[in-house]
Amino acid sequence: MFVNLDHIAIAVKNLDESISIYTDKLGFELVAEEELEERGLRLAVLSGAGAPIELLEDTTGEGTVAKFIAKHGPGLHHLAFNVEDIGKAMEELKARGMEFTTSEPNKGAGGKLIAFIHPRSTGGLMIELVQKI
Amino acid sequence: MFVNLDHIAIAVKNLDESISIYTDKLGFELVAEEELEERGLRLAVLSGAGAPIELLEDTTGEGTVAKFIAKHGPGLHHLAFNVEDIGKAMEELKARGMEFTTSEPNKGAGGKLIAFIHPRSTGGLMIELVQKI
Repeated sequence: MFVNLDHIAIAVKNLDESISIYTDKLGFELVAEEELEERGLRLAVLSGAGAPIELLEDTTGEGTVAKFIAKHGPGLHHLAFNVEDIGKAMEELKARGMEFTTSEPNKGAGGKLIAFIHPRSTGGLMIELVQKI
Repeated sequence: MFVNLDHIAIAVKNLDESISIYTDKLGFELVAEEELEERGLRLAVLSGAGAPIELLEDTTGEGTVAKFIAKHGPGLHHLAFNVEDIGKAMEELKARGMEFTTSEPNKGAGGKLIAFIHPRSTGGLMIELVQKI
């Protein structure tokens, strides 16, 4: 069902400082920066060592990433996998007892269709499904 | 410096239940199970979708994984990257201000040499270096 790892998402407190650490100190390459106003997020895409990494900073102080950091501290936030047909994948996963945070897919960065499996279904891991369009 | 993503480690409360979720419900394949008595851990290695996943259960209630779960809840724990020469990589990263949890590498699963960058150096992410031998 999961075709490949789309990215590993990391919740950070300060995007600019984090970009500097991941590039200057750890050797990743900055591929893109984006602001998703409707989701209250700034993000940076990094590549290197086979690990597509997305750094997420909450710009509102009230969004899901800010809540995650308040509860768990900054760090690994979710894994995202590509699927061919997000509607079909959601249906199959729901039939196996997986709960999603929304009943329908939403539009994510670059207009891709995305949906999140709630971490309570998996024992702690949030999983994002991504259908490229 | 980081050659490739060795694995994504997830802290879980119950390894057997988690294996069932990741294989039966999410479609990953169980590759190996191992008990690391000296580290107080049981682990399962899963593959699928380009994401080598390691599930970690603390068997002592007092180890670093138990402490992580007590503080952050179960979920994503660290990213592990292969390096060619762990001594050299540690030296370079220390020179850039990265702190390690131990001053020297330790032996991990399969006798590989491992070392961990402390999450306070990166803004929240624990990174494992793995040198295959």
